[in-house]
Amino acid sequence: MDLHTDLHTYMHQQRQRVDSALSEYLPAKGEKPQRLHEAMHYSVFAGGKRLRPLLMLAACTCVGGDDNNAMPAACAMEMIHTYSLIHDDLPAMDDDDFRRGVATNHKVFGEALAILAGDALLTQAFITLAQPQPQLECATQQRVCAIIAAAAGAAGMVGGQVVDMQAEGTSVDLATVEYIHNHKTGALIRASIECGALLGAADAASYNRLCQFGRAAGLAFQIADDILDIVGDQQQLGKDIGSDAERGKATWPAVAGIKAARRQMEQLHQQALAALEPFGDSATALRQMSAYIITRSS
Amino acid sequence: MDLHTDLHTYMHQQRQRVDSALSEYLPAKGEKPQRLHEAMHYSVFAGGKRLRPLLMLAACTCVGGDDNNAMPAACAMEMIHTYSLIHDDLPAMDDDDFRRGVATNHKVFGEALAILAGDALLTQAFITLAQPQPQLECATQQRVCAIIAAAAGAAGMVGGQVVDMQAEGTSVDLATVEYIHNHKTGALIRASIECGALLGAADAASYNRLCQFGRAAGLAFQIADDILDIVGDQQQLGKDIGSDAERGKATWPAVAGIKAARRQMEQLHQQALAALEPFGDSATALRQMSAYIITRSS
Repeated sequence: MDLHTDLHTYMHQQRQRVDSALSEYLPAKGEKPQRLHEAMHYSVFAGGKRLRPLLMLAACTCVGGDDNNAMPAACAMEMIHTYSLIHDDLPAMDDDDFRRGVATNHKVFGEALAILAGDALLTQAFITLAQPQPQLECATQQRVCAIIAAAAGAAGMVGGQVVDMQAEGTSVDLATVEYIHNHKTGALIRASIECGALLGAADAASYNRLCQFGRAAGLAFQIADDILDIVGDQQQLGKDIGSDAERGKATWPAVAGIKAARRQMEQLHQQALAALEPFGDSATALRQMSAYIITRSS
Repeated sequence: MDLHTDLHTYMHQQRQRVDSALSEYLPAKGEKPQRLHEAMHYSVFAGGKRLRPLLMLAACTCVGGDDNNAMPAACAMEMIHTYSLIHDDLPAMDDDDFRRGVATNHKVFGEALAILAGDALLTQAFITLAQPQPQLECATQQRVCAIIAAAAGAAGMVGGQVVDMQAEGTSVDLATVEYIHNHKTGALIRASIECGALLGAADAASYNRLCQFGRAAGLAFQIADDILDIVGDQQQLGKDIGSDAERGKATWPAVAGIKAARRQMEQLHQQALAALEPFGDSATALRQMSAYIITRSS
């Protein structure tokens, strides 16, 4: 596959499948209470890359699974990711007016409804995860639910967000930056890949390799995001450039310098590729997504 | 049993069991990020009545089940209830400084952490629900998870909260008040009883009777709460008297009058008792809790 054509086509097709499944798993927009459902749909369909769902589907395929079995969990992951963005953008948190180039949820629906739309999306993720899938073992579904909940909660994403908030404006070391990255964004990315492997019925060796891949790709993603905040253009990022630095956010380039950050990101990409090695062609999509993650910022 | 002594002892003992289990299922206070865990513990242990967990345990016992099997789900329910109170009290929502007589979460920990502590508690509920319980069938656990998620989400509690917010300061009819009650508070109370029955392996007839009981008790609870807001004393309620009226909240007494509200509550209590009839002595706790629910406000 040529990275710049086939990957785009592949990701575009997968995104369309995810978007159509998301529509199905969200409450219908026209149903009561309409305004809540509109607010939920608004942020879910505000131009996300669907990276987490796509990684989950690709991990499932990579181990020989049918990625339709991973679709509910992939959508649940995107709902959780979206709720976290809605709450992060609130005035009491990052106070952002724009996200992915469009007005943030609370700018359109007001603060109260934005909080509740986030709450409802987080809950909808577990409604989706708890629907019986006859083609899967119940224990597998339960494990996936446990992994996703753990990745999203106090020991995962929410914990990372708290430490990130506390670090703002203070001088932090690389260990704290790594903690924040591993929890705030890394946890959901790792969980996406791990759950994709489980839903594809991976054997233990393949599962462990994909977990390694997930750790490397998750951290690379966050470093790329930090670099993009410094060197990217606003259109690509959909938010203000330099906003992390302005806030005194703990980022890899801020602590280690941009050169070291790029080097670290490249190393992580190599680790990610090494973990995929034994899979051969079935890992093509994951390989290319890893490259996509880091080239976004170069 | 004498209502005023034995019920108190029984509820006190059950509350202690629930509190001790809650400590176990929450992340330890001393672990990183400490402040988040403190905020979670603060609101969970801020003097709640544990009505939902107690109803779940009692419903489980009523159908002959071992209520230890219902303890994780009972704690999950209390975490969800607590998160909803934290978010409801936020400045963007009801803007309350006191709850159950103590300072609200955001007054102590700040708004950002209160939002995140709520998010983490909601997520922790699903972490708790997704832990395998070998003494239960996986499918039963999955069904309980689905029921609780549905009751908490857009078609349940969050939906009720949105309609409640939209109704504030407007003139609403009894149908809207019922919608709000059935969703905002009723959904979790009904789900508690329903899940207790399932976790106690109720047969279909017993399950249906307990669902009937749940519908009546859930609505009676909310009417009692509305009446208490008008006639109760502040110490008993732990919040400002008349605050609903002040905000122009949609309540049963406001729409139908306090006499009609009392009559309706008494009718619902009778319906609740009728549903429990065939259970005989094993429903004593549920019967007394139904009486407790309505006598709180008389």
